[in-house]
Amino acid sequence: MAKIKTGIPGLDEKIDNGFPEGSVIMVYGPPKCGKTIFSTQFFYSGLQEEEPGLYAITGLPLKQLKNMMRELGISPTQYEEKGSVFYIDLFSVQSGRAEDAVDTEIVRNVLPREMTEFMIAFSDGLKKICHNALRVRVVLDGLTEFVEINPEVLKRATKILIAKNKYANATMFLTYTEGTADPRTETLFKSMVDGSIHLDGKGKLVIESMPMTPCPIELNYRITKKGIIVR
Amino acid sequence: MAKIKTGIPGLDEKIDNGFPEGSVIMVYGPPKCGKTIFSTQFFYSGLQEEEPGLYAITGLPLKQLKNMMRELGISPTQYEEKGSVFYIDLFSVQSGRAEDAVDTEIVRNVLPREMTEFMIAFSDGLKKICHNALRVRVVLDGLTEFVEINPEVLKRATKILIAKNKYANATMFLTYTEGTADPRTETLFKSMVDGSIHLDGKGKLVIESMPMTPCPIELNYRITKKGIIVR
Amino acid sequence: MAKIKTGIPGLDEKIDNGFPEGSVIMVYGPPKCGKTIFSTQFFYSGLQEEEPGLYAITGLPLKQLKNMMRELGISPTQYEEKGSVFYIDLFSVQSGRAEDAVDTEIVRNVLPREMTEFMIAFSDGLKKICHNALRVRVVLDGLTEFVEINPEVLKRATKILIAKNKYANATMFLTYTEGTADPRTETLFKSMVDGSIHLDGKGKLVIESMPMTPCPIELNYRITKKGIIVR
Amino acid sequence: MAKIKTGIPGLDEKIDNGFPEGSVIMVYGPPKCGKTIFSTQFFYSGLQEEEPGLYAITGLPLKQLKNMMRELGISPTQYEEKGSVFYIDLFSVQSGRAEDAVDTEIVRNVLPREMTEFMIAFSDGLKKICHNALRVRVVLDGLTEFVEINPEVLKRATKILIAKNKYANATMFLTYTEGTADPRTETLFKSMVDGSIHLDGKGKLVIESMPMTPCPIELNYRITKKGIIVR
Amino acid sequence: MAKIKTGIPGLDEKIDNGFPEGSVIMVYGPPKCGKTIFSTQFFYSGLQEEEPGLYAITGLPLKQLKNMMRELGISPTQYEEKGSVFYIDLFSVQSGRAEDAVDTEIVRNVLPREMTEFMIAFSDGLKKICHNALRVRVVLDGLTEFVEINPEVLKRATKILIAKNKYANATMFLTYTEGTADPRTETLFKSMVDGSIHLDGKGKLVIESMPMTPCPIELNYRITKKGIIVR
Amino acid sequence: MAKIKTGIPGLDEKIDNGFPEGSVIMVYGPPKCGKTIFSTQFFYSGLQEEEPGLYAITGLPLKQLKNMMRELGISPTQYEEKGSVFYIDLFSVQSGRAEDAVDTEIVRNVLPREMTEFMIAFSDGLKKICHNALRVRVVLDGLTEFVEINPEVLKRATKILIAKNKYANATMFLTYTEGTADPRTETLFKSMVDGSIHLDGKGKLVIESMPMTPCPIELNYRITKKGIIVR
Repeated sequence: MAKIKTGIPGLDEKIDNGFPEGSVIMVYGPPKCGKTIFSTQFFYSGLQEEEPGLYAITGLPLKQLKNMMRELGISPTQYEEKGSVFYIDLFSVQSGRAEDAVDTEIVRNVLPREMTEFMIAFSDGLKKICHNALRVRVVLDGLTEFVEINPEVLKRATKILIAKNKYANATMFLTYTEGTADPRTETLFKSMVDGSIHLDGKGKLVIESMPMTPCPIELNYRITKKGIIVR
Repeated sequence: MAKIKTGIPGLDEKIDNGFPEGSVIMVYGPPKCGKTIFSTQFFYSGLQEEEPGLYAITGLPLKQLKNMMRELGISPTQYEEKGSVFYIDLFSVQSGRAEDAVDTEIVRNVLPREMTEFMIAFSDGLKKICHNALRVRVVLDGLTEFVEINPEVLKRATKILIAKNKYANATMFLTYTEGTADPRTETLFKSMVDGSIHLDGKGKLVIESMPMTPCPIELNYRITKKGIIVR
Repeated sequence: MAKIKTGIPGLDEKIDNGFPEGSVIMVYGPPKCGKTIFSTQFFYSGLQEEEPGLYAITGLPLKQLKNMMRELGISPTQYEEKGSVFYIDLFSVQSGRAEDAVDTEIVRNVLPREMTEFMIAFSDGLKKICHNALRVRVVLDGLTEFVEINPEVLKRATKILIAKNKYANATMFLTYTEGTADPRTETLFKSMVDGSIHLDGKGKLVIESMPMTPCPIELNYRITKKGIIVR
Repeated sequence: MAKIKTGIPGLDEKIDNGFPEGSVIMVYGPPKCGKTIFSTQFFYSGLQEEEPGLYAITGLPLKQLKNMMRELGISPTQYEEKGSVFYIDLFSVQSGRAEDAVDTEIVRNVLPREMTEFMIAFSDGLKKICHNALRVRVVLDGLTEFVEINPEVLKRATKILIAKNKYANATMFLTYTEGTADPRTETLFKSMVDGSIHLDGKGKLVIESMPMTPCPIELNYRITKKGIIVR
Repeated sequence: MAKIKTGIPGLDEKIDNGFPEGSVIMVYGPPKCGKTIFSTQFFYSGLQEEEPGLYAITGLPLKQLKNMMRELGISPTQYEEKGSVFYIDLFSVQSGRAEDAVDTEIVRNVLPREMTEFMIAFSDGLKKICHNALRVRVVLDGLTEFVEINPEVLKRATKILIAKNKYANATMFLTYTEGTADPRTETLFKSMVDGSIHLDGKGKLVIESMPMTPCPIELNYRITKKGIIVR
Repeated sequence: MAKIKTGIPGLDEKIDNGFPEGSVIMVYGPPKCGKTIFSTQFFYSGLQEEEPGLYAITGLPLKQLKNMMRELGISPTQYEEKGSVFYIDLFSVQSGRAEDAVDTEIVRNVLPREMTEFMIAFSDGLKKICHNALRVRVVLDGLTEFVEINPEVLKRATKILIAKNKYANATMFLTYTEGTADPRTETLFKSMVDGSIHLDGKGKLVIESMPMTPCPIELNYRITKKGIIVR
């Protein structure tokens, strides 16, 4: 099974060289546990490996996400220019001010409750970045936003994404804020994804499931100025 | 009482040579505990015994299920050619792309919420594989998908299947992801089936009930590259 | 107070020679604890005492119930011929296939959600078996099916049955799968019946209430090839 | 404060010669704890003191209630003839058979969900028995039936009864099956009545509240062939 | 900060000479813990200090409230004649009998669900008693009645009252039966009032919050023939 | 990262000189724990640093808030005259009396359920105080009011505020009464804000999260006549 890099120093060697290509990985935990930091590392790691990436952000404006990347020393600018990056900003358009949410060649602004528009933006973005790419990465950061709108719709959407995965050879990375959905929906998420990783916000990272890897694997993590590090 | 093989090395001898013919067996447990692996072993074991099989899959595309079988060393191809296999793929059609869900002689694509269509596909499939067969196996992997749509419909459907059982001499195998329904529905499932087996995802397999067998029976299991093994 | 036999070896002597005539007894417990076996023993014991019986079955087809009776060495055939038996099969008609649910002189097929039809079948059956009988027995195996449809309707129906009881001199036997209704409804059941017996599925039988008998009475039970035995 | 007899041997002396006249007393506990037996003793005790009584019964037919009274050695017949008794049977009319629920001069049959009709029957009955009486007793056995229909309606009804109390100089006796309503409604009941008594079904009787009496008072009770006795 | 007397012997000295003038105080606890007795003492204490009072009663008829006051040795008659008392009876009108709920110069009968009418009665009453008064007291005994109707409406109403407070220089006294609302609403109550006092019904009184007073303060209380006494 | 003063003596030095500029900080805890006192100190501290402020108050009338400030020795009058203060009073208009809720140049009265009007008032206020200001502070005291109306609307509104933050260089301060929303919504709040501080009402202050600061940090606090002090 082909593997792709996780982007987290110290993690790849624990799970046989990274995530399985084409798999769906969920990272979840309490608020402020490091989900978005993990996401940006995963995303940027792909860019560095010539794997184009689509990043859908729901919890903060794209502008703030980019500031955060910059502070972590991550600079996707050159990849954006090469056309191997696509963003879906599901936050900014909520401000109600048109100037906060301007679409560009590589940015699409969508309301999270407009699932159909999101799906179209997603397809468009995937088509753009997949062009000539062997592998792509998809980050959906995070599920929480959608859970609130309609869990059933979310589930269906996630399945569409998974189905598209096979077609586009994409590896999907999902984040979820623990405790914002009911336990049954959380179980359902774990059931739907191929692998799930828990960050407890206090330094413990547990790989609860990962294809072809005996689990659970308990590790320690730390959030540094350069991002998450696993020991 | 006639018995049929479970397909799991080490399990048949613990329960008096296998599952009772014509019974309804449920395997359940947390996400990633091995339910689908168990299902494919049960399914394939029947094919090897000249017992045609119907496999209804809800949690991943049929294509991915077959990849998984191949990795386990299971190859249903020859049985497919003999007409003793029928698949109902309840996943792929959700992608919304027609090319992902093409019906063939032995594959039917159905949306899980279209219970009537599923029932028709089920009847058609059963009719096809039952032709000239003494015994058939039916795998419904898994119930979880239907629970979400309508527990009442599911219950009725399961009863229809059980009733058809007697007519077609079919043994039914159901999987269910623990924790995705409320406890009352879980109790109801256990009440409706003839036998239930719990996999805890950590190596413990418990036969909670089995017709004419004193229960519970606590066993250990392991997921190997060849599938589940019981000790 | 006149008593009638329970049909369970070892139980009558514990409760002053059996159940009070005309009472309503509920047997309940987890799935597979032996409720239906108890029911058939109670039912058959009446037939042997020249007490006609009505058996309403909801959880499996009448055909399978009879197989089960046969395996327990219970043969109601001669009583069926004498016209002292009536069955209401609430399961088979759910298969949707007319040939699975054929009405006869002594069998009526009804959908559990058609409460009115069930009530008519019940009245008809009671009228038939009550003819020239001093005492009759009524088995409703089980309540669970009805609970799911409409607890309020069930309660009213149970009361109708209790009212008819007095008129027909019938003793009623109800089964219920613990945990499929909410605790309040379970309390309500116990409140509505005259006596309740709990089987824990692990060998413990508790008579929780019984008219004119100090309770609780804790006993042990075993499911043998001949049915339930109490020690 | 004037007191009236409870009808339970051994109880009056514990609470300063009985219940306060004009108060509302609730007796509650699990199924089969003795609520109806207590009710009949309270009711009959009044008749013996020349206090007419209205008995509204919901959980069994009036006929069975009278059988039960007879077995306890209670015979209201002479008081019925004197016109100092009125019954409201909220059970029998549910059988659907007209002959089971025939109204007489002193019996009214009402469906529990027809709250307005019940209120009319209640007013009529009260008017009849209050004629020339200094004190009357009202038994509502029990609340459970009404809780299920509409807790809000029940509460309003109970208040109407309490208001009528003052006018008719009636003492009201309510029963309630613990656990059939939600805890908030149970608290509300205790809040609405003047006194509440708990029977635990195992021999312990607790006077939880009683006007002008320091509570709780813990007592023992036993159900004998002559009814409840307190020690 | 000006203080007003609580009316409870022994309490004023524990909280720096009484309740802050113009504050909103809630007294809550289980049924029969003494809330109404506390209310009448607070109310009467004001009258004695030339502070007119408005008493809104929901759980019993005004007539019974006055009987209760009389038994406690409280006689508001002279203050009623002076025009410094106003009652809102939210109970009696529920009996449905016009003669039970007659409005007078100082009594208004209102249905608890007619919040608007209650507000009008409240305003009218406040206007009447405020005339020429420096301070007034308002008792709302109790909130429970309104909680059941519409918590949102109640909250708004309570705020209106608080706003009117400032205008009329009124101190408000609220009672609430613990356990009849959900925990969130209980928290909300505590959040809305300025001070809250818990009576546990077993002799413990806790001042949970009180403006400018370090809390909690744990005290003992007793219900005597003269009302509540704190030690 | 630029920092702004918290206004709480002893707190700034614990978190690297104050809150990050432009961040969203939530202070939450049980009723009466000191949230509004904290808010006024934060608000006033900004004014003293030439940082204009917008204060939206929901739980008490603006007039009472100002009284409270005055008692704490806080006097925003001079800043009001300079035009660097704006108030939104979401309480007073609920009294229904026009004279209690008069709009001025720097005060806007809005009903909490009129979210759109609140948003307009918010925008207007922000525009006014931002004029010529480098930094502004926004206090929303508190969220609880809005949670009750519509959690979804609240969330969207909070996001709009956060988005406007970036534009106006505002730091936002939110308060929330613990236990008035369900746990999932509380988790969501913590997920949405940049930092959260818990006051337990008993002297313990915990900084649960704060951008670029290792958390949690456990501190002690005391409410004095001059406001909250941290040790």
